[in-house]
Amino acid sequence: MKSIIKNWNHIFKLDPDKKISDDHLAKICSSGTDAIMVGGSSGITYENTYDLFSRIQQYSIPTILEVSNQDAIVIGFDLYMIPIVLNASDAEWIIGNHQRAIKKYGDIMPWENILTEAYVSLNPDATVTKVTNASTDLNEEDVLSYARCAEQLFHMPIFYVEYSGVFGNIAMLKNVKKVLTNTQFFYGGGINNIQKALMAAKVADTIIVGNAIYNDIELAIETVKIKDEMPKQ
Amino acid sequence: MKSIIKNWNHIFKLDPDKKISDDHLAKICSSGTDAIMVGGSSGITYENTYDLFSRIQQYSIPTILEVSNQDAIVIGFDLYMIPIVLNASDAEWIIGNHQRAIKKYGDIMPWENILTEAYVSLNPDATVTKVTNASTDLNEEDVLSYARCAEQLFHMPIFYVEYSGVFGNIAMLKNVKKVLTNTQFFYGGGINNIQKALMAAKVADTIIVGNAIYNDIELAIETVKIKDEMPKQ
Repeated sequence: MKSIIKNWNHIFKLDPDKKISDDHLAKICSSGTDAIMVGGSSGITYENTYDLFSRIQQYSIPTILEVSNQDAIVIGFDLYMIPIVLNASDAEWIIGNHQRAIKKYGDIMPWENILTEAYVSLNPDATVTKVTNASTDLNEEDVLSYARCAEQLFHMPIFYVEYSGVFGNIAMLKNVKKVLTNTQFFYGGGINNIQKALMAAKVADTIIVGNAIYNDIELAIETVKIKDEMPKQ
Repeated sequence: MKSIIKNWNHIFKLDPDKKISDDHLAKICSSGTDAIMVGGSSGITYENTYDLFSRIQQYSIPTILEVSNQDAIVIGFDLYMIPIVLNASDAEWIIGNHQRAIKKYGDIMPWENILTEAYVSLNPDATVTKVTNASTDLNEEDVLSYARCAEQLFHMPIFYVEYSGVFGNIAMLKNVKKVLTNTQFFYGGGINNIQKALMAAKVADTIIVGNAIYNDIELAIETVKIKDEMPKQ
């Protein structure tokens, strides 16, 4: 199951703590996107995660739970992605929380469906940055070295640069891609129209569209068109 | 080169900050051990590392540098092992130092000869514990969950339990081995005679003998006999 992500260019990310109408959800799930990721940085509970998952399940689209809270793990997702926040100042967000979750659930964790994301949060105002006390005062060389840590030291399947609502530095992202070989490059942040989606999709392996869903659903849906431009695999 | 470690059951670990006579070094390097690791937790400099490496190089034995200080990296070792201290309280010893070293040297690092060690330090009095502010108040379930983090989250090639001079809890180590599949299990600490070496070698894939070299060279050399007991690969 894990290797399926290699074919994914576009993912919509839904936040259990935000409201979405049935109509908008139908548009997202039928858009042609490769997968729906469920995740957020605050207000995530078992109840709102389960509720959103149940609604998405009506569509035949791969589902991912991005785990941020061990009390909000809902069974049934196709994949589980576990963020390791590489630029967190506190070891809690690199291994502490993870070790405790594994201590509790290690015997029953479906490892064949679990992927780790080496996460770098670059927007100083983002909730994830504040929650994890991440250092965003990073230059290009810092980000490239985190990418190399992800691939070479930790052999993680995903390197995820998240600008959370702000569109990133494309020249820098292009250089990130150059230092990655086996690790898949996810980019998220500020993709709110097809132009930005195309720019991001040219440098990252997979783009994540989140906030745009809640701000302008039609523009968000248009970002799926990047798939027509990508090489078929 | 990296896969060679799968055949290693016994490693002698030499500390550049400790004196060893030519006679004792000859005994160690000609003992039949699988490799010589060079590393320590304090007083490691480029000069003492280079000096020890030059002396070992006279023998035809695989050499490993366990990197703890980016100013003491000597070129020419067969393998470089980079410890990631999983139970460190400070992110510096999990990724901080590593990220800065990669930022500086990433372009020229010989990745094909570099292995990461997922390190858990369990002796509260050990220098490495103090330097990394590692939490050693861990029960068996904690150690097993760190082992799973090493293999399942970080896909690291080595899980290294280090008791630093104290002989570990064999029943616990046996359970560590059970949760590891691809990740190789290194054990070090308190192996100062053949009996302890045999006990440790029955549960770990590879045992590391360090302090005993400096305390009783003859007993240290005897620990290599565990290789006669191990299945040939």
